[in-house]
Parts: sequence; structure tokens; C-alpha cells
Amino acid sequence: MGAALLSEFATEIVVPVCAVIGIVFSLVQWVLVSRVKLTSERHASGSNKNGFGDSLIEEEEGLNDHNVVTKCAEIQTAISEGATSFLFTEYQYVGIFMIAFAILIFLFLGSVEGFSSKSQPCTYDKEKTCKPALATALFSTISFLLGAITSVLSGFLGMKIATYANARTTLEARKGVGKAFIVAFRSGAVMGFLLAANGLLVLYIAINLFKLYYGDDWEGLFEAITGYGLGGSSMALFGRVGGGIYTKAADVGADLVGKVERNIPEDDPRNPAVIADNVGDNVGDIAGMGSDLFGSYAESSCAALVVASISSFGVNHDFTAMLYPLLISSVGILVCLITTLFATDFFEIKGVNEIEPALKKQLIISTVIMTVGIAIVTWIGVPSSFTIYNFGDQKVVKNWQLFLCVGVGLWAGLIIGFVTEYYTSNAYSPVQDVADSCRTGAATNVIFGLALGYKSVIIPIFAIAISIFVSFSFAAMYGIAVAALGMLSTIATGLAIDAYGPISDNAGGIAEMAGMSHRIRERTDALDAAGNTTAAIGKGFAIGSAALVSLALFGAFVSRAAISTVDVLTPKVFIGLIVGAMLPYWFSAMTMKSVGSAALKMVEEVRRQFNTIPGLMEGHAKPDYATCVKISTDASIKEMIPPGALVMLTPLIVGTFFGVETLAGVLAGALVSGVQIAISASNTGGAWDNAKKYIEAGASEHARTLGPKGSDPHKAAVIGDTVGDPLKDTSGPSLNILIKLMAVESLLCIGAAEAIGVETSSVEELGISVSVQNPPVSENLPVNGAEWVGLFAREMLSATIVNDAKVRASKLLEVSG
Amino acid sequence: MGAALLSEFATEIVVPVCAVIGIVFSLVQWVLVSRVKLTSERHASGSNKNGFGDSLIEEEEGLNDHNVVTKCAEIQTAISEGATSFLFTEYQYVGIFMIAFAILIFLFLGSVEGFSSKSQPCTYDKEKTCKPALATALFSTISFLLGAITSVLSGFLGMKIATYANARTTLEARKGVGKAFIVAFRSGAVMGFLLAANGLLVLYIAINLFKLYYGDDWEGLFEAITGYGLGGSSMALFGRVGGGIYTKAADVGADLVGKVERNIPEDDPRNPAVIADNVGDNVGDIAGMGSDLFGSYAESSCAALVVASISSFGVNHDFTAMLYPLLISSVGILVCLITTLFATDFFEIKGVNEIEPALKKQLIISTVIMTVGIAIVTWIGVPSSFTIYNFGDQKVVKNWQLFLCVGVGLWAGLIIGFVTEYYTSNAYSPVQDVADSCRTGAATNVIFGLALGYKSVIIPIFAIAISIFVSFSFAAMYGIAVAALGMLSTIATGLAIDAYGPISDNAGGIAEMAGMSHRIRERTDALDAAGNTTAAIGKGFAIGSAALVSLALFGAFVSRAAISTVDVLTPKVFIGLIVGAMLPYWFSAMTMKSVGSAALKMVEEVRRQFNTIPGLMEGHAKPDYATCVKISTDASIKEMIPPGALVMLTPLIVGTFFGVETLAGVLAGALVSGVQIAISASNTGGAWDNAKKYIEAGASEHARTLGPKGSDPHKAAVIGDTVGDPLKDTSGPSLNILIKLMAVESLLCIGAAEAIGVETSSVEELGISVSVQNPPVSENLPVNGAEWVGLFAREMLSATIVNDAKVRASKLLEVSG
Repeated sequence: MGAALLSEFATEIVVPVCAVIGIVFSLVQWVLVSRVKLTSERHASGSNKNGFGDSLIEEEEGLNDHNVVTKCAEIQTAISEGATSFLFTEYQYVGIFMIAFAILIFLFLGSVEGFSSKSQPCTYDKEKTCKPALATALFSTISFLLGAITSVLSGFLGMKIATYANARTTLEARKGVGKAFIVAFRSGAVMGFLLAANGLLVLYIAINLFKLYYGDDWEGLFEAITGYGLGGSSMALFGRVGGGIYTKAADVGADLVGKVERNIPEDDPRNPAVIADNVGDNVGDIAGMGSDLFGSYAESSCAALVVASISSFGVNHDFTAMLYPLLISSVGILVCLITTLFATDFFEIKGVNEIEPALKKQLIISTVIMTVGIAIVTWIGVPSSFTIYNFGDQKVVKNWQLFLCVGVGLWAGLIIGFVTEYYTSNAYSPVQDVADSCRTGAATNVIFGLALGYKSVIIPIFAIAISIFVSFSFAAMYGIAVAALGMLSTIATGLAIDAYGPISDNAGGIAEMAGMSHRIRERTDALDAAGNTTAAIGKGFAIGSAALVSLALFGAFVSRAAISTVDVLTPKVFIGLIVGAMLPYWFSAMTMKSVGSAALKMVEEVRRQFNTIPGLMEGHAKPDYATCVKISTDASIKEMIPPGALVMLTPLIVGTFFGVETLAGVLAGALVSGVQIAISASNTGGAWDNAKKYIEAGASEHARTLGPKGSDPHKAAVIGDTVGDPLKDTSGPSLNILIKLMAVESLLCIGAAEAIGVETSSVEELGISVSVQNPPVSENLPVNGAEWVGLFAREMLSATIVNDAKVRASKLLEVSG
Repeated sequence: MGAALLSEFATEIVVPVCAVIGIVFSLVQWVLVSRVKLTSERHASGSNKNGFGDSLIEEEEGLNDHNVVTKCAEIQTAISEGATSFLFTEYQYVGIFMIAFAILIFLFLGSVEGFSSKSQPCTYDKEKTCKPALATALFSTISFLLGAITSVLSGFLGMKIATYANARTTLEARKGVGKAFIVAFRSGAVMGFLLAANGLLVLYIAINLFKLYYGDDWEGLFEAITGYGLGGSSMALFGRVGGGIYTKAADVGADLVGKVERNIPEDDPRNPAVIADNVGDNVGDIAGMGSDLFGSYAESSCAALVVASISSFGVNHDFTAMLYPLLISSVGILVCLITTLFATDFFEIKGVNEIEPALKKQLIISTVIMTVGIAIVTWIGVPSSFTIYNFGDQKVVKNWQLFLCVGVGLWAGLIIGFVTEYYTSNAYSPVQDVADSCRTGAATNVIFGLALGYKSVIIPIFAIAISIFVSFSFAAMYGIAVAALGMLSTIATGLAIDAYGPISDNAGGIAEMAGMSHRIRERTDALDAAGNTTAAIGKGFAIGSAALVSLALFGAFVSRAAISTVDVLTPKVFIGLIVGAMLPYWFSAMTMKSVGSAALKMVEEVRRQFNTIPGLMEGHAKPDYATCVKISTDASIKEMIPPGALVMLTPLIVGTFFGVETLAGVLAGALVSGVQIAISASNTGGAWDNAKKYIEAGASEHARTLGPKGSDPHKAAVIGDTVGDPLKDTSGPSLNILIKLMAVESLLCIGAAEAIGVETSSVEELGISVSVQNPPVSENLPVNGAEWVGLFAREMLSATIVNDAKVRASKLLEVSG
């Protein structure tokens, strides 16, 4: 079998160096962005305006006066404060949730051996002695907290740079679309690289620190490390669901009163909800998307590591091969760095029609270079032949097979990206057809949009299916996990082009609010239209990787639950499958309803302000932006609870009352059904948004026959856009959380159920032997599980429901009713 | 084990007698309906007007003049002619399809033993001698044709009575809502009883005639009888998909020009597409629904019979127990007969608010009485203990367990009906909330409607899951089949209340076209609003029973394919599952697009007529209704091909290139995902339609704040209604066909693949022994399957593409592209 070509020492250097390069690169980007000044003082100093004075490609429009810049700065401050205020409110809840969860993890894992601090025989190799359960509990909890904190930190920093860059993008738009594009894209890159590099570095450091204690017990070491993935992905519940509700409550609320009732344009500064709307873009698409992708990234890394630890890599103590997942990510950072330079330095964007091709090139370049990177890493990082743990057996895998596993994930990501682009960009016929259907009114627009979303599912599902087939066939669950990593290996570029979207959207909003000229609005609109497409691409990546990660977790759950087969032809599994396939609908109904009721509160407040603040409509008085921000913040935290409870309680209830086979069915059903809804919802929404932009921009003969703004087709397009908002930004992306979190929680529950169950039986029966002997774990489950549900529910409730306990409790009741 | 209490002789009498009673009852209803005269001659004869003169509950409005009646009669004739013309066009294609399919069945089944006419050992009991394969081929083909013809006949007669009753309902509405309700409901009952009784009678006669030849070879007998189910369900492809496209192409097309562009009311006689629209209601909801439910009914009966024939019933030659499925249906007819009397004779409807409760009572009464009926049939019809074939084993079942299997299906149907009613009737808060959301525009209406549809899935899925769990646990696939039969046992009542919907809808249209007073329109609108709910209930039943039937067929397929488990954790099955879950989206995208393009053709024609026929808008000239009918007819037949091809080709392609495990995954995935979309689509559409009606009717304080017609909230509601049209009447219900037909076709393919495969191996290896010995049937499949696909495709194509071959071929290519 042999060892990897790369020495352990080299690995120990390559990984942190790449991570640090990523962090440094992102800081450099930040500095470059910060050179765009938000004060107009240097303005009079002549040629070197805003630090880019020498290289102006288009002339300024004489709008660079003091007032405009000040106004932009003011608006940016308001958005930044709103976003920070939301994040801090959210973090209070996140903090409580995190601590409660950490305690639970510690209690569950620690109680396996009654908090014994004595060493014990290893699970998969009984002849060796492994570290005690108490250590596993402690280190798992620590890595959970590390994952959670890294996720929170990445989200926070991403949002900071986004709210820092939005006004700068607006100001640069005065100089030309190319300049503005670079600022927005650089800022996105800050987010992307910080997240990828931080995630990698923290994981790397944790492994090395834990290794000091664990020594040769790699099985225990990497089991403890899985907490990192759980920490990362559980934060995504807040980021995606809470953030998704926030952003669309504000957006829909602002539009309903502003555009529909008061007939004022989008992003008009008179609209009290306009700041909340702009905050929302950052909350949902930056922080939410970041936490979602980070969760997938951390989960897939940890899933790969834990499988590797009981495969030949772990057994032979081949450290380089063990860290293969991290090596992939390390190379990914370098590849993305080179890719970014193509967008910011090697080429220059000169017109609005070059924006989308530039972003598309990012996808292609990163994928092509990364393919080479994967080949190199696989060649030097793993032995030419090795074995992988596969549901109790060891499966022989060649290194080229592993290369194909990662590669198929990577290229599936590209295909998903391309298909998404095709279906959501207004450069192609699908969106143009949707726009054309606005001619006959909003109804045909909605019908065509829904049909487009349904159709857009086909190729991505085939891409995911092929990835699963190839990677599963070659390297079982390890293959699935590294395929997910392959898809996420270019995460820095993926996040850069994704974060670019909301930054451009904000930039457009700020231009409108600051009263900038039509020409500048046109530029920011073009940036924004490309941003809608990139946001949809980001969502495509997110759901694709979530599907793969969930499958890997599902596999881990099934191994752990000692189910040898999940046979669709048993009633237990089949009802699980059909009920599981229903859950995404239930969840979507909840999240859409949440957006609806939160938006309604916003509508009331906005109406109240228009009615009670004299001179608001005339522009004499300033609206009370802060109240709207507060409403969105409070509503999103509160409305998050029912869908959150559905996700958290389903595995518990199903596992407890119906057993693990049914739970396995539920997970599979939710996965295969949720992926479809998520993809179709985000593409439908993206297409509607861009159909509207297509009509507004009027860039072609065809588009002009539909426009201008305010025409009947345009009004129809606005309706589609509003319908699409919660679909693409709340209910669709939130489904990633549903499928991932249910899978990871099931895995945790099984551990816990075993932990409680083993007090009456012996721990030796667990682990690898169970899949052969098949002990009645699931039969023990109901009684013990029920006790545990009580414990869990009490912990959860007492911890999270600190203040308005009654409201939350009634919400929880509503869920079950 | 013992025999059933009911003697064979008694069974031979009970079944046909019940069927004949059903037919006689439906003819009586027809006669009663026909007593409403469509001529105004008897009019002057005084008190006995229209045969109901004595019992007028409300006064006539002086509108019974000659002109109005003549106009009604004219419109009815136009609708009836349009419907008949569509059906005859459809039948040309149906006929070709049927003959091609029949030939294929004969060839496949006959080739098993090289068209040998020698007797052979039985498949499941090798010691006995069974009839030759040629006989099976011949009789299967005959029963296929019988099933197909019965389906076509039932649909045709249903449509005849519906188009006969619509104008009569309108005329009766002048006398009061109660009278009109009775006419509409009676006509629906004609359809319901004819279908149920004909289906039963033909099946009964076929069994008895075949028995003359087969004698004691019941295994062969009931295998031949399964062709009946296939015949019934394959016709539903035309009824549901073709009918669905027809009805909505006409409806959406008519609305887009009429309501949106010309601002004329719905069903205005000046609109050239108005007749096509009214024809569509009959084509889609009467003929389509009828063929769909008949397919489910025939499939579940045949599935139960074929399992029973290799269980103790068949082995012991217990004829009464064998015919248990037919006994259930027989009793169902009697129960429905009594139930109908509650609506038409025992109670009287005096106000519009009594319509929905009356229909709801129908559901409750039929279910309660039927429960008793099932208990009696189970008590006297089957032994107290018996064995049922279960994937190679024999499972012991008690008669009370069988009762629970049927009962759980029956009550699950009621629950689905109630939930559907709750979510689609404007008497409850969900629809009222949707109506209220129209206040803030069409976008919120669409969002709330979609959320409502998603939410409405929850309870029906649990009901289906529980039915599956109970019936599967107690009596394996036989349990599932009889649970489906339980749900369909009250099919006569179900179809009556379902067919009532389009009849009332037509009645409203005729009232508008004939220029009747506002008060009469109010009555027909109230009837129609209740009809939307009943249509949704009917769709709920249809999808619920389709799910159960598909599962039974799926089980049969898996048994036949000699797969012992369908393990989700194998890559082959999992990719099947995820791709299968995607198919309903692909299919829906196709059907929605089909409606879109067909509607567009309609729009062009309507616009042309408005522009070129002078005096049309002013009402001086008559539009050319026939051209619109022709456009809808042609478009629906043509547009049906891509989705039809998807359904027909998927099992072939997947089975051939990926093997039977993947195909099993595809079937399971399509089933669990399709059910959700079908339910949510039909409920969303129903809710939107009734939200609009709620605002129009203005029956409550709340509704009046939203109205009247033409207000902004009403306009928003109209948009939702139009979006819902294709969802509820085309893409949603068509999914039943997708899941049923793919399952039945897979079953057929496996038979065929075996047939070709066995030329090189021996037939003895098949059958019961395969599930134990597990011969490599699936490995033989690719090569032999591929030959067969070629054969099948050639046959299919050459047969159906007689005339416009090029168009169809390009369509087929589009599907794969």
C-alpha cells in the first residue's frame, strides 16, 4: 500500500502556509478596497482622486460633490449599524444555543462510560487502548465550540466588509462599471478567502493541538474533531433561516408599501424600511450563505477525516494521507487566489455586458486549475493504493479513483453553476421568455417562472446523481465526502462571486438613496443583475454540496445505527421516505409564512410612519429607519423558532417513536425531495428578479418592447420578483439546513441513544461489530430515547427561552399542531 | 383456515346484482335529470313547469322566456359538440395507441414460450400444470382491451351526461339553488355509478368467461386478468394529461384576452374561446378524472386479485375469498346509492351556505356506512384466518386485520377529503387568509397560496403513511392493494361530488352567456365555489389512491425483478431515488409549458377574431367558437407527447442502461416526491380559485372589504386564480399518471425482459424461486433489454405517428434534449 509521497513534515508546513496566504490575501484585498475613500476631503487635491485618479476610464459626472459622498457615508453607516445590531441580537441567541448545545454534547458523550477517565479499548480495533470517553466528550465539545465560533466570526467579518464596501462600490460606479465591479468583487473575495482560510487554519490547529493529547489514538482524535463540523453547521440554522426571514421581511415589507401603495421607487430614502432592506441583503446572502457553506465545508472535511481515521490512512498513521481533505482545501485557496487575479488584475471590465462573462470565467478558471491541483495533491498526498472503511468492510481504492471522486464533485459544481447561470441570467432565452410572458400579465409570468424553476432542476440533479454514483462506487462514504469537498474546494471564489451580489445590490440602493444620476444607477443595476445570477449560482453550489454532505452524514448515521440495509420495501422505511419527502414542504410553508407575517409587521410600521411623520412623502422629514431594523431583527429571531423546532425535533420524535429504520427513511426522503425544491425555488426567484431587471435595463430591442419601468409588463415582472423573494432567499436556501442538520442531529442522537442504552448493555457491542451482530439498539431506543427527549427538550427550552418564554412555547405548540 | 361464510353461488349472484343495481340507479338519475326540459314549449302549460312545478321553493324571476331557454340550449349544444369532437379526435389516437399496445402485450407475453400452445408447469406450484403462455398472451390482451374500452366508455358517458346536465342546472337555478344542486349532483352520480358499476361488471364477466377456459388454473386466470388494470390506467394518460392541457389551454387563453386585454367578464359569449373553456371543464375534470380513478380502481382490484391467486384463497380455490376485492366494490355501490339519496331525496338544500355541508355529509355518510359494509364483507367473505403471498413467503392474516387494511384506506380517504376541504373551501380561514393577502397585491396572494399548498400536504401524507404502514404490516402488498380499494370503495360518491364541480362551473358559464340575471349568477357561483372544493377533494382521492396503487405495483415489480431488497445505501438505488424525485418536476415543467404554448395559440386566435370580426366586441356578431375548440383539441393531443414520452421512456431507459435496482429507486423517488407536488398543486389552485370566488361573492363583512369585482384585491385574486389553473388542473393531477404508469410499465418491462431473457435460460428459474435463488435476471437485462427497447420504440413510434410524423419525432427529441 505504501505511504504518500509528501512527507508528514511537508504537510505540516503546506497546510498552515496556504491558510495564512489566504488570510493575507484577503487582508490585502481589504486594504485595496479601503483605498476608496468615503470622505470627500481629498477630493480637492486634484488628480489623485480616491486613490484611482490616474486610471479613470470614464469621466466623472460632476457628481463627486461633498453632499453625495457624505450622504453615501451616512447611508453606509446606517446599514452597517443595522447589520451589526442584528448580528449582536442574533449572537445573544446563538450564544445561548451554542452553550446549551455544547453542554448537551459533553453530557451525552461523557455519559457513555459514566464520565470515566480511564482508558478503554478502541471501538474499531479492540486490541489497542484508546483515550477515555471523558476526553472524547471534552475535546468534542471544544471542537464544537471552535467550529461555531469560526462560523460566527467568518459571518461577522464577511458582513463587516460587505457593509464597508457597498458605498465604496457606489462611489466607484461614478468612474465606470469596471472600477465598481472590482471593488465589489474584491470585497466578496475578502469574505471568501477569510472564510476558507480561517476554516482551514482553525481545523488544522485543532488537529495538531488535540494530537498532543491523543498521540497515536487517531480514531479518538478524529472522532473528537467531528464536533467542528457540527459546530459549523448548527450555526447555519441561525444564519440561513433567521437571516433569510430577516432579509425578505424587510424587502417584501418595503416593496409592498413603497412600490405598491405609495408608488415610490425601490430603495427610495423616504421608505422607512429601506435601510432594513439593505441590511437584509447582507444578513441573508453574506452571513447566511457564509455560515451555510462553511457548515458544508466543515462537515465534509470532518466526515472524510473520521472515515479516514478508521481506514488504512489512520491505521497506518499516514498523516499526510489523513490530512488529504485539508490538502485539497489548501490547494483550493491557492487556486482561488490565482483565479481572483484574473478578475481583478489580469483583465479589465469595460462595459456592462462584460460583467457576467467575467464572473463565469471565474468559475471556469478555478475549476480547470483546481483539477490540476487535485491531481497533484492526490498524486503526492495519498498512496497509490489504500483501503477505505465501508460499512464494516475495507474497500481498496486506487489514487486515481480518489482523484475522480474529488474531480467529479468539482465539475458537478461547475455544471450546476453553468445551468444556474443559464436559467437565471437575462442573457439567455429562459429569462427572456419569462420576461416576454409578462406581456400577458403577472399570471403567465408566475406560471412560466415556476415552470422554469422546475425545469432547471433536471441537469443539476443528474450532475449530483453522477457525482454520487462515481464517488460512492469508488470510495463509499469517503468518496461522497471528498466529492463534496471537491465541490467546495473553490469555495473562496464561489463565495467571492456570491458575496459580490448583495454588495452590488446595496451599491444600487445607496446610489438611489443618495440621489445619484440615472447613468450611475444603470451601472449599479447591471452589477446587480449579474449579482442575482451569481447569488443563484452560490445557492446552487450550496444545495449541491449540502446534498453530498447530507448523504455522507446519512451514511455515517446508518453505520452508527447498525442498520445493514435501508430497504424501501419495508413499511417502516417506506413511510419514513414519504413523510421525509413531505418535510421540505412543511418547512417551506413555515418559512414562507414567517416571511409573510414578518413582512406584515413591517408593512404596518412603514404605513404608520408615512401616516404619522409629517413631510415624509415630500422628502422634508427623515423616516425612523431604526424601528424597521428592530422589527426585522425581532421578527426573524422569533419566526425562526417554528421551522427551527421542526428541524430539531423531527429526528428526535421519529427516532424515539418509530425507530432508526424509519428515521433513515425520513432522512433519505427529505434529502431527495428537499434538493429539488431548493434548486427550483432559488432559480425561479433568480429568474424573476432578472426578468424584471431585463425589462428595466431595456438593453435589447425585445426588452424595450416590454419596458419601460412602470409599463404593464414591468408591473407584472415586479409581481414575479416579489413572489420570488421569499422563494430564493428564505425557503429555498433554508432547505439546505433542513437536510444537513437533520442528518447530523440523527447521527448525534444515535450516539446519545447508545450512550444511554449502553448503561444496561456493554459498550463493546457497539462500533464495527454491531453491523454484523446487529444488536437490538433500535429496540432499546424508545424507552431510553424518550427519557432523553425529555432531557433534551428541557435543556433546549430552558436555555433558549430566557425572556419571552410564553411566546416561544406557544410557537412550539403551533408547530406540533 | 376454513372457507368464507358466503357461498360461491351467493358471490356469483351478489356481485353482478350490485353492478346492475348501480347501472339502473345511474339510469334513473339520468331520467330524472332529463325531466328538466331544455325547450320552453311546456312552459305555457301552467303549474307543472319543468316537471318540478309543484315544489318550487323560490319564485321564478320572469326570465323563463323563450329566448333564454333557447340560448341555453344553443350553448349546451355547442359545448356538447365541442366535447364530442375532442373525444373523437382523442379516440383516434387512443385507438392507435391501444391497438399498438395490445399487439405489444400479445407479442411479449406470447414469446415467453415461443408462442407455444402446450400446457406448462405453473410458476408458483411446479407440480400442477397450467395453461400455455399463448393463452396468457391472448387473454391478457383481451382483458387489456376490455379495460381500455371500459375506461373510454365510462369517460365518454360521463362527459355526455355532464354536457347534457350543465344547461339544465342553469335553468333549474332560476327556481332556486337547491333544485340546481340536485340536477348537478344527480348528473355527477350518473357518471360515478356508471363508472363504478361498469368497471365492476366488466371485470366480473371477464373473470367468469376466462374461468370457462382456465378452469382450476387460477394463477393463470388472474394473471391474464391484470391486463384489465393496465388497460384502464393506460387510457388515463390521454384523459389526464391530454385533457388537462386542453382544459387549461382554453381557460388561460380565454382569460388572458378576455379578462386581461378586453376587460370583458369571464364566460362572456363574445369571447371566442368561451365554448372551448367550457368544453375543457368536461374534458379535464370529468373524462380525465374518471379515467384516472377508473385506472386506480382497476389496478388495485387486479393487484389484489393476482396476489390472492397465489395465496391461500387461490391455492384453496376459495372463489368468494378470491373475489373479495369485487365484493368490496359491490357493497360500495350499494353504500353510495344510499348515500346519494341523502343528498337528493332525504334532505333539501335551501340556501347557498348549505351546499358545502351537504357535500361534506356525503363523504362522512358514505365512509361510515361503508365501514359497516367492509366489516360485513370481511366477516362473510373471507375465512377467519388465511395466508397471503409476501415476497416469496406466505404471511398469515386474520380477517379482522384485513378489515383494518381496507378500513384504514377508506378513512384515510375521508381524512384527505376533509383536509382538502379545509384548505380549499372559502368557509375556513386558510382560503380567507389567502383572500386577505390580496389586499397587498398579487405577489402576497401567490406567496400565501403557495405556502397554503405546501402546508396542505402534511396531514394527507401522514394519512397515506399510516395507511401504508397498517396495511403493509398486516397483509403486505395485498394489504396495500385492498387499502387502495378501500379508499376507492366509495368511488361512485367520490366521482359524483367531483363531477358536480365542472357541471356547476359550466352552468355558471351558460348563465353568463345566456345573459341571465345577477341573482342567478350568484346561485351558480355558489354552486361553482363548492365545486372547486369538491374538485380538489376528488384530486386528493385520486392522488391518495394513486400513491397506494403505485406502491402495490412497485411491490409487484420488485417481486418480479427478483430484487430481495431495495437498499437506499447502494449508489445504484440512491441515484435512482434522487433522479426519480426529480421526474415530477421535469414532468410538471413540461405540462405547464404545454399549457403555456397551447394557451398562446389560443390567445392569438382569440385576438385575431376580435380584430377581424367586425361587431364582435359590441355583441352584434357571433365569434367562431369551433376554431378555438379545434385549436385546443389539436394542441392538447400534440402537447401531450413530450410528457407522455417522458413517462413511457423513463422506465425503459433506466431499466435498460442502469438495471432494475436503479429503476426501483426511480419508482420510489417519483412516488414519494410526486405525491407531494400533486397534492400541493391541486390545493393551491383550488384555494386561489375560491379566494377569488370569496371576494366576488362578498358573503361576509370581511369579504366585502376586499371586493367588489374589479377592485384591486379582486384583480390580485384573479392573477392567483390564473396561476392556479394549470397547477390544479394539468400539472398536479397529471402526476398521478406519472407515478402509476411508470410503475405498471416497469412491471411490464420486467415481464418482457424476462420473456426475451428466458430464451437463453429456462422459465423454471423465474417465479417464486427467484426471490430465494436470486438469478442474475437484472444482469441479463441490459443486452436483452436494449433489443427490446428498440422493438418497443419502433412499434410505438410507427403506430402512433401515422400522420404528422415529423412534428412528433422532433418533440421526442426535444424531450431527450
